[in-house]
Order: sequence, then C-alpha cells, then structure tokens
Amino acid sequence: MSLLEEIRSLKDQTGFNFKFNLEGLSFDRIIYAGMGGSGIAGSIFSQIFRDREILVWNDYGLPEYAGKESIVIAASYSGNTEETVSSATEAKRRGMVVLGMGTGGRLEGLCDQWIRIPSGKQPRSSLGYFMSVLVRTFMREEEMEGTYEVLDELDNDNSFLKDIALQISKGEKIPVIYSFRPYQSVAYRWRTQFNENSKVIAFSHYFPELDHNEITGLWKTYGKDRFFFLLAGKPSEKRLADRIRNTMELTGTRYVTIEEKGKNVVSRTLYLVHCGDYLSYYLAMERGIDPEDVSVITRLKQSLEPAP
Amino acid sequence: MSLLEEIRSLKDQTGFNFKFNLEGLSFDRIIYAGMGGSGIAGSIFSQIFRDREILVWNDYGLPEYAGKESIVIAASYSGNTEETVSSATEAKRRGMVVLGMGTGGRLEGLCDQWIRIPSGKQPRSSLGYFMSVLVRTFMREEEMEGTYEVLDELDNDNSFLKDIALQISKGEKIPVIYSFRPYQSVAYRWRTQFNENSKVIAFSHYFPELDHNEITGLWKTYGKDRFFFLLAGKPSEKRLADRIRNTMELTGTRYVTIEEKGKNVVSRTLYLVHCGDYLSYYLAMERGIDPEDVSVITRLKQSLEPAP
Repeated sequence: MSLLEEIRSLKDQTGFNFKFNLEGLSFDRIIYAGMGGSGIAGSIFSQIFRDREILVWNDYGLPEYAGKESIVIAASYSGNTEETVSSATEAKRRGMVVLGMGTGGRLEGLCDQWIRIPSGKQPRSSLGYFMSVLVRTFMREEEMEGTYEVLDELDNDNSFLKDIALQISKGEKIPVIYSFRPYQSVAYRWRTQFNENSKVIAFSHYFPELDHNEITGLWKTYGKDRFFFLLAGKPSEKRLADRIRNTMELTGTRYVTIEEKGKNVVSRTLYLVHCGDYLSYYLAMERGIDPEDVSVITRLKQSLEPAP
Repeated sequence: MSLLEEIRSLKDQTGFNFKFNLEGLSFDRIIYAGMGGSGIAGSIFSQIFRDREILVWNDYGLPEYAGKESIVIAASYSGNTEETVSSATEAKRRGMVVLGMGTGGRLEGLCDQWIRIPSGKQPRSSLGYFMSVLVRTFMREEEMEGTYEVLDELDNDNSFLKDIALQISKGEKIPVIYSFRPYQSVAYRWRTQFNENSKVIAFSHYFPELDHNEITGLWKTYGKDRFFFLLAGKPSEKRLADRIRNTMELTGTRYVTIEEKGKNVVSRTLYLVHCGDYLSYYLAMERGIDPEDVSVITRLKQSLEPAP
C-alpha cells in the first residue's frame, strides 16, 4: 500500500468500531501513554473531550504521583515502542488498569483490555483507528457523524493543498503552523507529518500563548522569509479571530489559513488532520523525496542497546 | 533597571521567602493558570515536583472537567493578564480555591490568598519570584540550597554564552533548543527568551518524543544550516545520553550542549534557565536590538477591544 493509499484510508479508519469497556472502572484521570503518531491521537482527543482529564505522557515510566485513581491507555502501533511498554509495565507494577491498543507486540500481554488495530500501515497512518477507539469509548457514536463525508470530500478535492505545498517547496520554506483550541495538537500533528513524510523541519505554536512571546520574534526577527506560516483552522469566536489577525498584521507576517469543515468537532478536527496529511505528502512529491522512508528511526533503534 | 540588571537579579529572587498556606486545603490536582513567563514558571516547576499533578493552563477559562477536587494557582506579573483573570474568575464561579501571585491588578481581588511580588521589572524577569513561591509552598526549603551560589557563579562567568550568541548572530541562525525531562520546559523558556529579548524566532522540542518524528526532518531537510541547535542540559542517564548523541550523529546535526550545574534539581534547573537569559541577552546585543522593547505586545492589546 502506498502512502497516498494509506492517507486515503483515514476515512475508512473512522468506521473502526471497537471500543474499550469501561463498565466497573472508576477513575479520575486518564493517562494516555504513547509516542509520536500514537501519542498525538491522545493529544488531539484530549482537546475534543471535555468531561475528564486526559494527560498525555510521552516518555518512559509514568508520572510519580499517578496511582489507582487513574487508568492508563497505552497506544503503540507496533506494540513494541519501548517508552510505551515501559509506561504500561510501570502501571501494572502500581496496580493500575491498563487499556491497550496496537497491532500486537509486547504491549498486548501487559494490558487488561486490548484492541487490535489492522496492521500493514505506517504507524503515523493509523491515527484514525486510535481516534476512533477513543471517540467511541468516551463519547457517543453520533459525535463522529459526517466525518466520513468530509474526509471523502477532501480525498476527492485537495488540489488547493498541492498548490500550497508547491509554494513551500519552491521557496524551500520551513513550515510554521499556528493554531488554537481545540486544534492545538492538530498543528503539532502537521509538524510531525512534515517531518516524517516531507523530511523537513517544521514548527508549531498556538494562540493565545504565542501572543506573550513568539509575537516579539515575528516582529523583528531576521530570516523570516525562510518560513511559511500556516494557520490550521479558522477561528469562529470574534475576539480570537481579531487577536490572530492583528498579531499577524502588526508583525507583518503573511500566512495562509486552512479552514476546517464538518458539522461537529470530531469531523472538523479530522478534516484538518487530513489536510496536513496531504500538505506533507505533496511537499514530499515536490521535493522528490520518498515519504515512506523513515529508516533513520530504525537505524537509531538499532544503534541503541536492546530495551531493558 | 536595565534588563541586564534584571537578569542578574534572578539570584536574589530565589531568596524571596513567601509561600502559600496549604493548611486545611484538600486537593488532587493543582491547576496553574498563567501566560508567557508567568505560565512557564509553573511548567518548569511541574517537571521538578513529583508529588502532585500540576496542570498548566495557558488559555481563557478552565478545563471543563475541573472542579473542587483541584485548586488553582493564578500567576500574572501585572495581575491584569486577561486570560489569567478569566481563569481565576471561572474558578471562583465553580467554588474552587484560588491562590494568586503578581504585583497587583484585577487578579488580586479574585484570589483567596495573594502573594505580592516586587514590581518594576519586565514580566519575564520575575520567573525567580514565582518559582521561589512554588518551591517553598510545595517542597522543603533545603531543596533550593545552593541555588544562589550557582546563579552567582554564572553572573560572574558567562562569557561562554556570549561566544555562542556571537555564532548565532554572525550566521543569522534560528535557535532550535532540545532538552529532556526535567528540563523540557527550560527549552521552551529559552525559546521565549530568544523571542522577547533577542527578537528572533526560535523553536524547541524534547527527547525522547522527537525521536519519533523530528529526527526524520533533521535527517533530510533543506535549509538546516539556517538553524543553530542547542541542547539544554547534559543527560546523565546512559540510555538517554546514547539516544541523543546517536540521533544527532545519524542525522548529521551539529549542536552545542549547555551543561547544568548545581547540587539539586532546583538549582540545576534555575542555572539552566539563567543560561538562556544570558544567551538571549547577548544575542540582542550582537544584533543591536533593544532587549527591553516588547511594545508590539502593548500594541496588540490596544488593538483589541477591552477585555470582557
């Protein structure tokens, strides 16, 4: 399966209808352990879901204070990500409930519940499966309504993203992606898709926090023409919209807005995620880069001693 | 007071010995509301303090799920930061206890306890006061031991940071700062000090998360020579040290490590924070930029309608 086919599979992934069984579980906090693309699914979901805290942990072990008042969701595409295996192991040592998802691997045997997601993809192309499990576990089925349709629409008409990728490529620009709640982690997802698919460095930040610091960099920095500024999402609230527009105007920063589509927050979020898939894919094509080749990560793993 | 004098005042700030009174308060989680430099104090502290969760909130309002099981610490230098005032207002509406700190402003009247920090500084130069209150409130006095001494040492001998700033300036490089627990937020602090003092764009990320995405950008990106890579802190744990060194070698990324000093985590963290103060100050000097001028932030505030 080519990466473009994998990208297009996002809409089908949203139909993946497995969910964790929460019956009989009591918890105050969900700790979502996952690295890279697996972790990002949790970060994105944490901005959509408002009823409970979802603390995303992307490191070895677990926060020291965490105990049985929390449940752990451990997500790893391969099921062998060493940081995530370490988190699940630590959770079991503390007597915590661990819900896991992935294609298999060491993680499966550590989890109280396990959802097997289909294999044969790039780890980063399975975000839809993870998101789908989270939405179905914690929200209502209806809250995914219309997602398939907007993703399908984008699969059939995304030439505007190719045009942007062309501009980025022609100027050899470094993408800088800004966003705002509930899309802060979508900006980070785009950053990492530019890293993995296009093999370019990219950066992200979010409003209103950046108005307290980065704004002064934007205002007088050297080398601003090395960057291409993208706004992921169009703010609907007037004060936030004013804030963003004025920040960019006062600092003389040109940017392109990618507007979300969809009738609920899940579909709008996944639509925006998908825009980043295409942007980064097309940038790889423009650069003549193989978007599937992430062999440097394999080489890094091989260079380290086996995980303890 | 010049910014250099303000920077040098960090060591005196660590002697600020006010703390919140936690007697009779019961809470599972601390929500630390603050923007920019005020917020960063909470992020940095959250990596040092392991006994309780500190959730840093840098936006309007509060997370929907938060209630009386949490206490709020609201920090704003001016006491008028609109996002933080909004968070404190929302906390009171929900019947939560709010502990506040700042130089005065609207926030003071909203808080159940208030610690007044000395005024007359740039907001970003008061990080030591906020950190000091947090350490004294939640940890033991001894855990700041030796902090004054290492900061004093750095005040007297920081020419190695001037040399680095010169290299950044000469090549008009964009700083990219990497770090790892417990210094992840120190890297972000450096980023924002480069923004505010030097008026350059800067970026940060952390290990091991970046080995799942940014590594592939570092490997084959265009324009890598536009960046100057800094590692904030020298990892002592072997596996992490190997990981970082191998990541940089495999991707052919040259970088400079700034090593921490101090006999405990508080002093080591503040020493590293202080290195970023000097780096960003010297870069401003090399660029002929006024490090104190952040008038664009004032202009942004004026451009928006008065806060609701």
